[in-house]
Amino acid sequence: MYIAIMGYGTVGSGVAEVISNNHDSIVKKSSQAELEVKYILDLRDFPGDVNESKMVKDFNIILNDPEVKVVVETMGGLHPAYEFVSSCLKAGKSVVTSNKELVAAKGDELLAIAKEKNANFLFEASVGGGIPIIRPISQCLAANRIDEIAGILNGTTNFILTMMIDKNMSFEDALKLAQDNGYAEKDPTADVEGHDACRKICILAALCFGKHVYPDAVYTEGITKITLTDVEYVRSWGGVIKLIGRAKRLSEDKISAIVSPALVKNGSQLASVNDVFNAILVRGDATGDVVFYGKGAGKLPTASAVVADVIDCARNIEKRKDFGWESGTENYVVDYNELETALYVRAKTDDKANAVEALKAVFGEIEILSRENAEADELAFVTPSGAEKELNSKLEGVDKLSVLSKIRVVDY
Amino acid sequence: MYIAIMGYGTVGSGVAEVISNNHDSIVKKSSQAELEVKYILDLRDFPGDVNESKMVKDFNIILNDPEVKVVVETMGGLHPAYEFVSSCLKAGKSVVTSNKELVAAKGDELLAIAKEKNANFLFEASVGGGIPIIRPISQCLAANRIDEIAGILNGTTNFILTMMIDKNMSFEDALKLAQDNGYAEKDPTADVEGHDACRKICILAALCFGKHVYPDAVYTEGITKITLTDVEYVRSWGGVIKLIGRAKRLSEDKISAIVSPALVKNGSQLASVNDVFNAILVRGDATGDVVFYGKGAGKLPTASAVVADVIDCARNIEKRKDFGWESGTENYVVDYNELETALYVRAKTDDKANAVEALKAVFGEIEILSRENAEADELAFVTPSGAEKELNSKLEGVDKLSVLSKIRVVDY
Repeated sequence: MYIAIMGYGTVGSGVAEVISNNHDSIVKKSSQAELEVKYILDLRDFPGDVNESKMVKDFNIILNDPEVKVVVETMGGLHPAYEFVSSCLKAGKSVVTSNKELVAAKGDELLAIAKEKNANFLFEASVGGGIPIIRPISQCLAANRIDEIAGILNGTTNFILTMMIDKNMSFEDALKLAQDNGYAEKDPTADVEGHDACRKICILAALCFGKHVYPDAVYTEGITKITLTDVEYVRSWGGVIKLIGRAKRLSEDKISAIVSPALVKNGSQLASVNDVFNAILVRGDATGDVVFYGKGAGKLPTASAVVADVIDCARNIEKRKDFGWESGTENYVVDYNELETALYVRAKTDDKANAVEALKAVFGEIEILSRENAEADELAFVTPSGAEKELNSKLEGVDKLSVLSKIRVVDY
Repeated sequence: MYIAIMGYGTVGSGVAEVISNNHDSIVKKSSQAELEVKYILDLRDFPGDVNESKMVKDFNIILNDPEVKVVVETMGGLHPAYEFVSSCLKAGKSVVTSNKELVAAKGDELLAIAKEKNANFLFEASVGGGIPIIRPISQCLAANRIDEIAGILNGTTNFILTMMIDKNMSFEDALKLAQDNGYAEKDPTADVEGHDACRKICILAALCFGKHVYPDAVYTEGITKITLTDVEYVRSWGGVIKLIGRAKRLSEDKISAIVSPALVKNGSQLASVNDVFNAILVRGDATGDVVFYGKGAGKLPTASAVVADVIDCARNIEKRKDFGWESGTENYVVDYNELETALYVRAKTDDKANAVEALKAVFGEIEILSRENAEADELAFVTPSGAEKELNSKLEGVDKLSVLSKIRVVDY
C-alpha cells in the first residue's frame, strides 16, 4: 500500500523516520504486503535528504494518484491543510492528521465527508502527542457514558509552571528557558494564552459528548498572569497551579468547557505531572477515573501516533470508524460564569481584620492562606464552592478589598 | 446480534448491567441493529433476578445456538473455562474474557484457534480492570518497538502497602482491613504472594514482545515479608515500596520478567498510585514512557472493559484482530539473578563501623539510610547497581552482617 505525507516538518519527517525504523513490524501489523511512502509534499527543498526522491511540490500529484490510499497531513495550520484534506477525503482517500487546529475547527465537516466516501479520518496525534487517547476514548471506554474529561494538555505551559513551582523562576525566566530548550516558539502566544489547550479540549469534548465544540465558545485563560506569590500561597494550601482544560456533560444538550489555570491538590494524579508531560483524566460512569500520561509533543512520540493511525487505516481500508461526532449546536457550551467552582483569591487590603470578617459574612467560611514574608496588606484565601458569578458578586460586595488575582480550584 | 455470558458472578452480572444501562449507545457503537444477551450460564439459581429468564445451566445450549455470535467468559479459573472457551472458538464464535488465569496459561493456544476459525478472542478486562491497556498496546502503540513494561498490577496489595505507608499499619492489620472492605479474599494468597500480578505481567509481556510467557517461568515474590521498619527506611530514602510486575526486551529471543516488591522514588508516576488503583507504564522507542492509570478491579470498571471488547467483536465480526502472540520458547525468560538491579538491604550487625567499611570495600559506595529510634545494631543501605547474583555474593562476603530483608530498586 502506498501513502503520502503532506508537510515535511518535525512531525512529517518523524513519520517517515518511524515507518523506516520499525518497517517490518509496521507492515505486518498493517495486514498489507508492503507499506511505502510514495510522495512527500513540501514547498521547500531538502537537498541530500534520505527522502529527496519522494519530494513533490504539487498537491495534485498525490490527489490524482489512485495508488495512494492513505494521506498523512502534518502541515499544521488551517489553510491549505483544510482544502487538501477535504479534497483527499472527497477522492475516497483516508486521511491521518496531527493538526489540532484543523480538527478543532473542521472535525465535524471532515468526518461527514469521510462518512459519505466511506474513508477514514483519524487524528490520534492531534491531542496528547504520543499518548493514546482518541482511540481509548472512542473504543476502550465505549461501554461508558463519559461524564467529564480534564487534562494538562499543553507541555510548554506545564514546563513553565513546573519551573516556577520547583525552581522558583519567574514566568518570564521560565518562558525564556522553555524557548532556549525548544519547548516554546519565538511567539509563544498560542501556548501561554491557552489557545493550544483550547483546541485540544474541543476535540476531546466532541469525542466524549458527541457534538462539535467550537474553540471560540470556550472561555480560555492562559498563564501569563500567574506570579510566584500565587505559587507560594498555593503551596501552603497543599497544591500546585496547573493549566487545565476541562469539559463536563451537564445534560443531553449542554456541556461546560473551559481552559484556565487551576489549583490542583497534591496527591491528585494531575498534580504530579511535571515538565513537558501531559496527562488526561477521563471520568466514565462504569470505569470511574482513568488517567493517560506521557509526552504530549515531540517529533517521535507524535509521529508514532500518526503511524498507529496509518496502520489502522491500512488494516481497515473500506471499513470506516464512526466517532459519533455531530455538528455543534447553538448555546451548547454553558457560560463559565454559571458553573460551580471554588476560587483562590489574592488581594490587598488596608484593614485585614475587617476584610476577613466581611468575607466570612458573605461566604460563610473561607480558608485563609499564608506565606513567609508576606506583606502586611496581603490577604489570600480560598472561597467555598458556588456559581462563579455569585462568588464574584460576593467578592465585589466586600469593601476595602482590592483583588489582585483569582484562580479556580478543581477537584480531580 | 445475540451474545451469551458464562458466569454470573461479580463481573458477569456487571456486564449484563452495563449493557442494560448504556444500551442505546452500545448498540449504536456496535454497528448492529440490536445487541442482546440471550443466555447467561451459571450453575447457581438466581430467583427474582432481573435476568432470571435468560439463565441456563447447560453449556451446550450456548454452543449449539448459531444465533449467539459472541460469548463472554467471566467464570474465572482454568477449568471448565478453558474447555468452554476453546469449544466456542472452534465453533467460530468470538469470545471475550476477563479471566487472567486463562489468558496467562492458554493465550497462545486460544489465539491460534481463533485465528484458524477467523474469530476474535479479546481480553482487555484481564489486565488493569477498567484501564484501557490491551488495545492501546496492540493498536495505539503499534508503531513503536516496546522495550519495557512495568506496573502496579494488583489493587489488593497496593491497598495494603498504602495503608502501611500512609497509616503506619502493620501488614496483618492492613490485610484485615482489605478483607473487611471486600478488597481481599478470605484466602488472600493469590494477591499477597504476587500470583495475580504474575499472570498479568505474563499477558502484558506476551503482547509487547510477541511470545507466550508462562507464569512459572517468572520469579514471583509477594509482600508478606515487608515490615514497617522497611517502609520507614524507604521513606527516608525518598520513596515508597510497591509491588511491581515488570518485563523487558533483552534481545530478539530473550526477555526478563519478574514480580517483586520494589523501591520507587517519589515523583515517579508509579509512586503516587495509591489504594486499590493500578498503573501500567509502557516504554516505547518512539513514544517514550506512557502511563495508564485507573481502577484495576471492581464490578463495573471490569465489566465496562468486557463490553468494550464485545462492541469491538460486534463491529468487526469476521474481521479478526491479530495480536502477534506466538507460543513460548525454552529459556525465553532470563533468570532474575542475571539481571542488573540496585538492592535495598536491612541487616543486623554487632560491629556497625567495621561492617560499613567492609561494605564500602566490596561495593565501592553505598547509600546509608536512617530512621528515628533505630536500634543500635540496625543497618540499612542501598547498593549500587549490579547483577543481582553478584550483589548477593558480595553481601555474603561481608562478615558480621546478618541480612534481614532485601528489596530491589527500580528506576521508573
